[in-house]
Amino acid sequence: MEEKKAMQLAIDKAREGIKNGNVVACEHNVVWKTTDITAHAEINAIRVACKNLNSIDLSGCTIFSTCEPCPMCFSACHWARIAKIVYGASIADAKIAGFHELSISNETMKELGSSEVEIVFGFMREENVQLFEEWKQKCGSKVY
Amino acid sequence: MEEKKAMQLAIDKAREGIKNGNVVACEHNVVWKTTDITAHAEINAIRVACKNLNSIDLSGCTIFSTCEPCPMCFSACHWARIAKIVYGASIADAKIAGFHELSISNETMKELGSSEVEIVFGFMREENVQLFEEWKQKCGSKVY
Repeated sequence: MEEKKAMQLAIDKAREGIKNGNVVACEHNVVWKTTDITAHAEINAIRVACKNLNSIDLSGCTIFSTCEPCPMCFSACHWARIAKIVYGASIADAKIAGFHELSISNETMKELGSSEVEIVFGFMREENVQLFEEWKQKCGSKVY
Repeated sequence: MEEKKAMQLAIDKAREGIKNGNVVACEHNVVWKTTDITAHAEINAIRVACKNLNSIDLSGCTIFSTCEPCPMCFSACHWARIAKIVYGASIADAKIAGFHELSISNETMKELGSSEVEIVFGFMREENVQLFEEWKQKCGSKVY
């Protein structure tokens, strides 16, 4: 699948529009919906991918995320041996939107933890930052 | 609940013995059992605690972990606003046991991320390191 299309899927999914192409999993954040603080989109996608591939090893997989994975999600990618993380907006953008972020970038996590994961940042950044605007208008007080 | 008793619960739980005292949640690792690379004991305990308290905010809670939470689990504690992490063995011990750890200590995560969580390390360390020995004898090739 072409990379822009894959990121567009993540964006669409974040808007609740489910579209399955040739992907292993495509999930969005359900922290509030399921009362589960760990239910970030990336964690959900990794859990579903493990189920769908019937494996805890996601070697070779690329994860497309609308926002830079937080340290929890970055570490989950590492555990799953995901090959590549492609993200749009940054943790700093999420923090500006009001989230209680641990401000440690993926680059720092990778370096400190000697992770082999490849990181592509700022991919379709504008469209992804725009999601925070839409989100603020719809549920601006629901930060966590 | 007395702190040693709470840690003993975590140890017992890691041995598959479920004992519920006056605790919000008590879980063990089910990564292999559920084919879910994110299903570390701490993530599971936080998810169950959210359900049991019907809240994504676990402020005031203390988590007792047999091993130092990995960066994924540390970050989940941060998101849940857990007040205190008490752990026994260290990430270095888990690495020696063969796990594919991101070697970033809880102290480093706390410092870099400006987290307010309190950390107590090496609590009942000997009993907790012993668990790795038991685990190696039972499932030594099942590292991930």
